[in-house]
Amino acid sequence: MERDISILKENILFKDLTAEQIRKVLGISRKVVFSENETIMKEGEVGDTLYMMLEGTVEVAKKLVINGMSDQVTGKDKVFTKLSAGQHAMFGEIALLEEHERTATVKAVTDCVLYEIGKDDFLKLAEEDYELGYKILLNLVRVVSSTLRKTLEDTIKLTTVLSIVLEEL
Amino acid sequence: MERDISILKENILFKDLTAEQIRKVLGISRKVVFSENETIMKEGEVGDTLYMMLEGTVEVAKKLVINGMSDQVTGKDKVFTKLSAGQHAMFGEIALLEEHERTATVKAVTDCVLYEIGKDDFLKLAEEDYELGYKILLNLVRVVSSTLRKTLEDTIKLTTVLSIVLEEL
Repeated sequence: MERDISILKENILFKDLTAEQIRKVLGISRKVVFSENETIMKEGEVGDTLYMMLEGTVEVAKKLVINGMSDQVTGKDKVFTKLSAGQHAMFGEIALLEEHERTATVKAVTDCVLYEIGKDDFLKLAEEDYELGYKILLNLVRVVSSTLRKTLEDTIKLTTVLSIVLEEL
Repeated sequence: MERDISILKENILFKDLTAEQIRKVLGISRKVVFSENETIMKEGEVGDTLYMMLEGTVEVAKKLVINGMSDQVTGKDKVFTKLSAGQHAMFGEIALLEEHERTATVKAVTDCVLYEIGKDDFLKLAEEDYELGYKILLNLVRVVSSTLRKTLEDTIKLTTVLSIVLEEL
């Protein structure tokens, strides 16, 4: 447990939390193991769990085009990112707030050990300890805001490329 | 004040807050007035305030292409949305968490009355009253998550269109 805390305290979700507060969150978490090549979450499926990496590497894949709309690009319609425990990575964070379809598929590249937190358990803990709930939400909302800003920049770049291509036609 | 509370309690930021809690938040807010055609915030400028609409209508404009990259589309590079007090609209919510460049320009279409909340005042209040801080953050993060999901869908649509156009070349 103490070894896990020393790794997880570097996770952005736990920024500004005391060891005692981290211990409380781990108390509502499950330590889960996935084997090499196992799928941890699947894009489009509803989920309500967040994952923090303790050991291993995962691959994140996202659909880039609407299925069936563009058959010729099949096989190119995924983007891959690798996340590793060494980066103190986390994923599935939107699910901690709202049960919703996963926006990406995550697969174990190596054997992986993760801590899994469920939405209902988190919300219950937060309502018992508002200070802890507030601190975690503040960390979480900053991650989500930062992802939103990057995604907004992507749409501007895509629209720019599209407008240049359309002018060439 | 009571009339303002009866309007603002419909705002998503105040969901599940008691009248007493709303009053506390208004205590750290400033009631501000903008005249027709006045700019409330400008895309690209750094800001640290959130706005909740009490009266009037605003227009939201966003750059859609990178400046200078595509001269021929000048004039088409904005998208407009109108928000009104009747919709209990709010904007600038990311700024409540992190001082950052505004992602859109907002202009008053009619004379407007708004409540403005500053980041530092909000964070101070939240640390004095974690229950209130937690409830507001939970509402805020759900708004930001929902915007993120819509923006992710936009990038998928844009990539699909782009891949179809590129196949035609």
